[in-house]
Amino acid sequence: MEKHDHRDIIVGRQPVMELLRAGQAVNRLYVASGARHGSIRDIIQLAKERNIPVKEVQPKFLDALSPIANHQGVAAEAAPFRYLELHELLALGRPQFYLVLAGIQDPQNLGSLIRSAEVCGVSGVIIPKHRACGVTPAAAKASAGAAAHMPIARVTNIRFALEELKQAGCWVVGADMEGEVCYRQNLSLPIALVIGGEGSGLPRLVKETCDFLVRIPMYGAVSSLNAAVAGGILLYEIAKQRHQE
Amino acid sequence: MEKHDHRDIIVGRQPVMELLRAGQAVNRLYVASGARHGSIRDIIQLAKERNIPVKEVQPKFLDALSPIANHQGVAAEAAPFRYLELHELLALGRPQFYLVLAGIQDPQNLGSLIRSAEVCGVSGVIIPKHRACGVTPAAAKASAGAAAHMPIARVTNIRFALEELKQAGCWVVGADMEGEVCYRQNLSLPIALVIGGEGSGLPRLVKETCDFLVRIPMYGAVSSLNAAVAGGILLYEIAKQRHQE
Repeated sequence: MEKHDHRDIIVGRQPVMELLRAGQAVNRLYVASGARHGSIRDIIQLAKERNIPVKEVQPKFLDALSPIANHQGVAAEAAPFRYLELHELLALGRPQFYLVLAGIQDPQNLGSLIRSAEVCGVSGVIIPKHRACGVTPAAAKASAGAAAHMPIARVTNIRFALEELKQAGCWVVGADMEGEVCYRQNLSLPIALVIGGEGSGLPRLVKETCDFLVRIPMYGAVSSLNAAVAGGILLYEIAKQRHQE
Repeated sequence: MEKHDHRDIIVGRQPVMELLRAGQAVNRLYVASGARHGSIRDIIQLAKERNIPVKEVQPKFLDALSPIANHQGVAAEAAPFRYLELHELLALGRPQFYLVLAGIQDPQNLGSLIRSAEVCGVSGVIIPKHRACGVTPAAAKASAGAAAHMPIARVTNIRFALEELKQAGCWVVGADMEGEVCYRQNLSLPIALVIGGEGSGLPRLVKETCDFLVRIPMYGAVSSLNAAVAGGILLYEIAKQRHQE
């Protein structure tokens, strides 16, 4: 976790640009003094159009704001990430294609999964409130701005959430090595794809709640994929089947 | 980059275990004193079978060896990564399915791509000698050990390498937004898939050298994938087509 979680500082040109484009609430923009080249100019322009105060600061101020990530001369102080309740997410009435992350710990993986979900046309992401990574600034940055476009619900109990998704008409499909090869399965259904945590996979009770399981075929000797890559491949396979119908 | 690149220190239980299993040259194994539980016991056993000296050290010695990554009580001092020449890679006579990375900068992405390549049955990975990330300990760790199983060639000039791959009978296929949707293209060919750098994509001259281009369909507003995820999806699509034939 990063230091400034409570203030939700987003750094880097692409994430800040996406944040502004998505119309998300931003309290203030910080720009390194003298930085007026390339995309920073567009970022300042966009902030001015939205009446967001732009403050010129020394680069070392930005370094202190963002001790880990590369700020590229720009940072935005965003309003804290606004999660939805699951029933609010379902009430949006978007196409029934959801991603449930049952215990992703690493903000890079969470951000990458949100980014892949957005690209694949997912309508909303569901994450647990406890024992999992939330949408921290590091996750928002890793999502390359996609977190600002994506409705995200946080739930206390993943199994109850899966039951609620079933009630809403979704097939609950878990990613698991014991499942059927993903491309042999019909995935152009109202669907909630469930991905487990890094290393740990799907918790047993979550697995038992799934309607069926799918796996990515493995042809090598190591036989495991990074959680974000595995999620990306399954989202791609679902998106492809949905759009081929 | 990490501090101990020149000594090639691999840390973490899974990466060290994979390194030993793959039979890669290891000079010495370091184990935190008193650590004898779970997989560490198997690691020590495997090292003894291979006559690799095992040294007990204080945990803070491991902390100093690995200032960034979590060592989990174990580290291996490996012989430096041995790259192949491209002609050596081709002479292995493995199935013609290669991955060419034309400028990946981030060791996490490089490791993740090598891991996905291994899972998808790729016969070898080709990377540039200059202006790109090499197989550093951070990349080897991110590959979850797959780097130890995968023949990797380093070349001075990517375009010359692509011409050599064509001479060897491969179709050279670039990942690019201007390409045909990947699943509409026949990819069950002798193939070398070319992935560009993060953000920058394929260099123009590399793109012009490709036989054809493919893209992943995008259904969202953000419209770009993490380089490692994009590579993983294309490798999956190719592997699937090769195994369906």
